[in-house]
Amino acid sequence: MPVGLSEPSSIAPVAGVRLASVAAGIKKNGQDDLVVFAFDEGACVAATFTQNAFCAAPVTLAKNHLSQSSPRALLINSGNANAGTGDAGMKNAEQTCQWLAEALGCDDSQVLPFSTGVIGEQLPMDAMYSGIEKIVPQLAQDNWLAAAQGIKTTDIVAKGASRSIMLDGTEVTISGISKGSGMIRPDMATMLAFIATDARVEQSFLQQCLSEAVTQSFNAITVDGDTSTNDACVLAATGAAGNPELNAASAEASAFADAVASLCRQLAQAIVRDGEGATKFVTVDIEQAASLDEARQVAYTIAHSPLVKTALFASDPNWGRILAAVGRAGVENLDISRVNLYLGDVCIVRGGGVAEDYREEKGQAVMDREEILIRVELGRGDSSAQIWTTDLSHEYVRINAEYRT
Amino acid sequence: MPVGLSEPSSIAPVAGVRLASVAAGIKKNGQDDLVVFAFDEGACVAATFTQNAFCAAPVTLAKNHLSQSSPRALLINSGNANAGTGDAGMKNAEQTCQWLAEALGCDDSQVLPFSTGVIGEQLPMDAMYSGIEKIVPQLAQDNWLAAAQGIKTTDIVAKGASRSIMLDGTEVTISGISKGSGMIRPDMATMLAFIATDARVEQSFLQQCLSEAVTQSFNAITVDGDTSTNDACVLAATGAAGNPELNAASAEASAFADAVASLCRQLAQAIVRDGEGATKFVTVDIEQAASLDEARQVAYTIAHSPLVKTALFASDPNWGRILAAVGRAGVENLDISRVNLYLGDVCIVRGGGVAEDYREEKGQAVMDREEILIRVELGRGDSSAQIWTTDLSHEYVRINAEYRT
Repeated sequence: MPVGLSEPSSIAPVAGVRLASVAAGIKKNGQDDLVVFAFDEGACVAATFTQNAFCAAPVTLAKNHLSQSSPRALLINSGNANAGTGDAGMKNAEQTCQWLAEALGCDDSQVLPFSTGVIGEQLPMDAMYSGIEKIVPQLAQDNWLAAAQGIKTTDIVAKGASRSIMLDGTEVTISGISKGSGMIRPDMATMLAFIATDARVEQSFLQQCLSEAVTQSFNAITVDGDTSTNDACVLAATGAAGNPELNAASAEASAFADAVASLCRQLAQAIVRDGEGATKFVTVDIEQAASLDEARQVAYTIAHSPLVKTALFASDPNWGRILAAVGRAGVENLDISRVNLYLGDVCIVRGGGVAEDYREEKGQAVMDREEILIRVELGRGDSSAQIWTTDLSHEYVRINAEYRT
Repeated sequence: MPVGLSEPSSIAPVAGVRLASVAAGIKKNGQDDLVVFAFDEGACVAATFTQNAFCAAPVTLAKNHLSQSSPRALLINSGNANAGTGDAGMKNAEQTCQWLAEALGCDDSQVLPFSTGVIGEQLPMDAMYSGIEKIVPQLAQDNWLAAAQGIKTTDIVAKGASRSIMLDGTEVTISGISKGSGMIRPDMATMLAFIATDARVEQSFLQQCLSEAVTQSFNAITVDGDTSTNDACVLAATGAAGNPELNAASAEASAFADAVASLCRQLAQAIVRDGEGATKFVTVDIEQAASLDEARQVAYTIAHSPLVKTALFASDPNWGRILAAVGRAGVENLDISRVNLYLGDVCIVRGGGVAEDYREEKGQAVMDREEILIRVELGRGDSSAQIWTTDLSHEYVRINAEYRT
């Protein structure tokens, strides 16, 4: 079950955004699998995408469309990733954009497509066609919770959240939904996250806010180290709130950026909390590194270690596995006599050796918790990085061994 | 159960090497846990060690001793890694070498210590003392099988093998044992492997043979990507066979090097076949890479992917996960339209897309086997690399979650 995470009870509507979710028959279990976002004219959109060389057809097409036009709609299906599907997959993605564009009365290039699910199977085009026909009449402002359900794959709970801030005397709303549970080690983008605000925001500042937020949220989580072929994160600003256009020089620029970052962090952490088979929510905090890259490298080496992850699953304060991961993380000339290791606020290793006052029961008490902080001081500089991850459980193996059966 | 691997029925004795194995009481289950190798005077020894910055006390001491003297003995204990044990751990390692040196009548620095087992606990010195007292009278040439048992930790079967070759008219023997099952992603050394030959070999050529063999054997396997703090591989040449001293210029130099490499490959593959929870033995073969580093990087990205490993466990030809791993392996400017992927001899992906003649049942037939070849052609150059790994099963999680309980 997800760690410290339940379904959101509400997600605030965003003026200028209508959306809907339907069961188009792509998923075999009959659950919702098609979601559309429609933006009023004048909306401004920022996005980040997977860096995987084998990116899926919809990712390539969405990037292409984004470079041509101002998006008016997002077309999202779950249950099929349309990845590894070659030319046919690309033609199918183009066709679905065309169908939605006709129904909405906009240009094909104003539709951004997103797919998530099984890799290597073609989209069921009949289901996509009838699903699009069915969904357009249902578009409405208050369907965020349904959309959060509709984009799920192996997720146990739907993920969404909202923020509300004042910009120059105008109240604006930022709402977002995300999905993802496995194949999670986003690289310059997340699994799928869709965020919208009614604030009026200049395009370049909007992209800057999103990129900075993603670095510290979706790009700081890992479940299994596998980067998806379909990761994408979109932030749309409709401007419907009527505030004076926000840009990097505005007085409230940082308030807006902070709100976006905080929302992204919550949505990203929700993916980890609902990580496949997760029984723990783990923060890995690396401090006193020589550089940010070094800090992240050590953090990911710990977070990806199957031995650390199985120890976390077992609530075993097996700190030797954490030290072994630090030791193989590729830090040049690491002086182990300067390394300190903490579990929660318990110092286990001081100066490279077991702390004199450490007792197993202290470590055990921290490991027994559902939320665990692993903190390492490298004694090399003043850079730090924080990432979030899960344990490795029987359930992770079961889910991924049975995924296609 | 190990994949295509059973206990060796015999390991050939090596003239000039006496060894023994006893239960000293370090392991809680009463099995053998102390092994000693004694070499006749004049033996020549080569070794490689872990590159983990947090290397264990015995590794540091063995390297130190090797730089001072010609080794006369190896002192190996299983059940306790003497790693993360600080100054006390180093003093204990020194003390045990001293005890064995006294019993054998050699210098402390002529004993190389090796430990494997739980990290972060001090060696039980009473057990070590009485074990050493008990083992020395039992040293004999024909105890290789017992020694292979004595160095096991989570290994299911003992691992050992022999080779016999003619050098300048003299028959020489090369025998070796290895142990390891988890925390396996050796880096310039293996878990523990001890190899001896009665050939007379020049020291620098002996080290060259070992280093080259290790690169293509112990350094080409991975179970879980975790590099141990205690990895070591030793090759001793006693010279008792009486052949003219072999060096790099000898006519039989490559025959000897090949025999060492072949033995190392067998011992290394045995570790993978007995990998924790392994149900598959998997060869990952990357061809047409721009460099050896690139080929190894792609191979390890596939071999470490939890999603690829769980698909292997499930015998699921989920090639999308393999492609996704190739795509995130960090190859600069990868042209996916030149990438081909094979499972066994079945071409699944040609030119970046599904091969036209591929059918799921063909991939399924390969995945149903116990021994699986994953082959990727990158279309970038003529470098290649081959590594060996296992799947990720429920059993791996169980073993590592319960390791200290």
